[in-house]
Formats: sequence, structure tokens, C-alpha cells
Amino acid sequence: MSRFERHIFICTNQRGPDDPRGCCASKGSEKVVESFKVELVRRGLKGRVRANKAGCLDNCARGVSVVVYPDAVWYGGVTPEDVPEIVDKHLLGGQPVERLRLDEADFREAGGGPKRGPAGGAPAPARGGAA
Amino acid sequence: MSRFERHIFICTNQRGPDDPRGCCASKGSEKVVESFKVELVRRGLKGRVRANKAGCLDNCARGVSVVVYPDAVWYGGVTPEDVPEIVDKHLLGGQPVERLRLDEADFREAGGGPKRGPAGGAPAPARGGAA
Repeated sequence: MSRFERHIFICTNQRGPDDPRGCCASKGSEKVVESFKVELVRRGLKGRVRANKAGCLDNCARGVSVVVYPDAVWYGGVTPEDVPEIVDKHLLGGQPVERLRLDEADFREAGGGPKRGPAGGAPAPARGGAA
Repeated sequence: MSRFERHIFICTNQRGPDDPRGCCASKGSEKVVESFKVELVRRGLKGRVRANKAGCLDNCARGVSVVVYPDAVWYGGVTPEDVPEIVDKHLLGGQPVERLRLDEADFREAGGGPKRGPAGGAPAPARGGAA
């Protein structure tokens, strides 16, 4: 038995304003947490799905970072306005929201390597949420 | 691809000293986090396994609470001294540390229902870490 059907972790890590990595707290992560909590109650998912704050999820440049387990689906650039779509499509419908997903290239970049397009050529364009 | 082979979340929620639920922070959760970070580096697991602080994991009476994903294995009453065993047996060996695991009865209790033994009879004895 699993305690929760799904468990959502939202990075709320905070760094100083001069830190070049940025941080999820400065991008409104607390509001994303609050939005998840509100939407889970609204959809009757409280007790089945849990949303928790988390420390640094190591995707600072792509915050607000969110990971959903046990699926291990990662999202980046999440805003409070995105949350109803994640709840409806992913948590209720079982289909991750592709436009917000972080992929292997994002993770390589987070790890310090170059971000490449699918053909391994020019760097991929920046994502909307990756300011 | 999954960003991390395993992702460990340690509850570091803090409540006031008079709160009857207790909290993981008062039971030394920060030291558990630190111990995981040290042991992951020591075992060469940094980058493959990540340990993060988390908000309230809803097992307050059984803290320090820890959950390991994507396995969805829950532990309660975790101390810094337990961490090397979790790393060796579970993260490296693939076998959860049964003596620390929270089970279905623990979750029912956390949810407000009565805690029952396997036969559904008398309440199960308290766990060592569930002070």
C-alpha cells in the first residue's frame, strides 16, 4: 500500500538576491504550493494526493520546480495558473502536462553540461519558464 | 529517464512546543537530513540519489518521518544513527530497512482511525520511534 496515490514536491528554496543561480522562492513557489493545496481540496483529492514544500530540487534556473512521485515526472517554470491543468490532466487524467515537463536535456544543463537540441547540434531555445 | 535513481524526503516541519501532535523538527530532523547528505557523498551516490527537506509528511507522531521515492517506502522514528543502514541496505542493496518502516496500520492511525494489529484485533504496540 502506498500512503498517497501521488506525492507532489514543490521547491521553495531561497537564495540571496545576488546568487546567479536564482531560486524558486523568488519565482513565487509559495503561491504554487498554496495553489496545489487549494486545488487538491477542490477536486476532492485531499488525503489521496499530497503537496509538500521541498528543499532545493537542483533545477534552480528552471524554477518553480515541481516533481510528482511515484511517476517521477518533473515540471519547470510552474506558476499558480498552471496548477489546475496539472491537477486535471496529470493527477486526475494520468497524462503529464507536456508543455511544462523538464526533459533529459534540461537535466544535463542543470548538471553543468551544455543543453543541446534533439539532434545534438545547436543549443535548444530557452523555455518560457526558464528565465 | 528519471532525474534521480532515488529521492529521499525528510520531514523538517516545526510546530510549537505545546502542539500535541509533536513535530519532526523537535525530534532532530535537521540532523537526519545532514546525515543523509554526508552518507550519500561518502558512498559516491551524490547526483544519483538526492536527499531533501520536506514540509509536514503527515506522520507527526512517528517522526522523524522519511519517504523514499519512487519506491514509496516510508520510515518512521528515524535517527541520524539509522541513516547508514538505510543507505547501505535500501539505497545500495535494494532492501528496505523493515524495522523502521511505517505500515498500513501506522497510516490508518495517522489518518485518525484506530491502529490495529494484523488480525484487526487489539491495538498494535507502539513503535520504538513513536514517542
